[in-house]
Amino acid sequence: MYDIHHRIGINAPMERVHHALTTTEGLASWWTTDTQGDPTVGGKLVFTFGSPDRSASFEVLEVADDRIVWRGIAGPDEWIDTTCTFQLTQEGDETVLFFTHGDWREAVPFIGHCTTKWGTFLLGLKALLEGGRSCTYPDELVISSWDH
Amino acid sequence: MYDIHHRIGINAPMERVHHALTTTEGLASWWTTDTQGDPTVGGKLVFTFGSPDRSASFEVLEVADDRIVWRGIAGPDEWIDTTCTFQLTQEGDETVLFFTHGDWREAVPFIGHCTTKWGTFLLGLKALLEGGRSCTYPDELVISSWDH
Repeated sequence: MYDIHHRIGINAPMERVHHALTTTEGLASWWTTDTQGDPTVGGKLVFTFGSPDRSASFEVLEVADDRIVWRGIAGPDEWIDTTCTFQLTQEGDETVLFFTHGDWREAVPFIGHCTTKWGTFLLGLKALLEGGRSCTYPDELVISSWDH
Repeated sequence: MYDIHHRIGINAPMERVHHALTTTEGLASWWTTDTQGDPTVGGKLVFTFGSPDRSASFEVLEVADDRIVWRGIAGPDEWIDTTCTFQLTQEGDETVLFFTHGDWREAVPFIGHCTTKWGTFLLGLKALLEGGRSCTYPDELVISSWDH
């Protein structure tokens, strides 16, 4: 199995980061504006990027104060049964977000694309919570022709 | 072993991307302005980030038209004997850079930090070659207090 990791320090209270990861309006603020579903445990979240064939669905497995876990249930084939884990810790003045998109079956080129892309979205979340601008779909940062 | 991957499409000829990866001035344009050494096979490259104890050294293992490989020989302990591979392919109108920082011994938090950070530098390289601004140290994007 192969995993993507990102580690970002956010100058905002943990509660605000948690809110951005556990509510549809929070998720819509940094990943895609078209975020729908139920962000509580057992719920299903659907993230759409322009058309129904460009969407990804997750089951919410865990929502704790310092940890949120989802499992991929529809969307890109490569994402089925992968897990997204958002781990939060308070370190000094910042809230550290350690993100893992884990359990990929193969290290295909798409894992590289998703790694880079997750970075742009998560750094957009950091910017947004610190008073700047996010990098949310459809105003995302285009990283290659695969984004079109 | 654990690997970091990034995949970025750059609207520039492969030769220009290759130059940015195989010359000290090219490397200094997107990673750190303090880049020194010999970028040819068997040479040693030293990348410094403000002070001698914040530097990383690599031996250049391979320089082909479509592939550059380095091996970590000094710097952060976690980087020793890791490899950085820059694979270039022409796909349609863009040069695709598939980057791998491979052979990490542990998936420590630092791998997450480095994943995010590599993304900012490589997207800076893309921006620079497309006529925009890079994200080069010391004008890097700060992603957490670990950058200070």
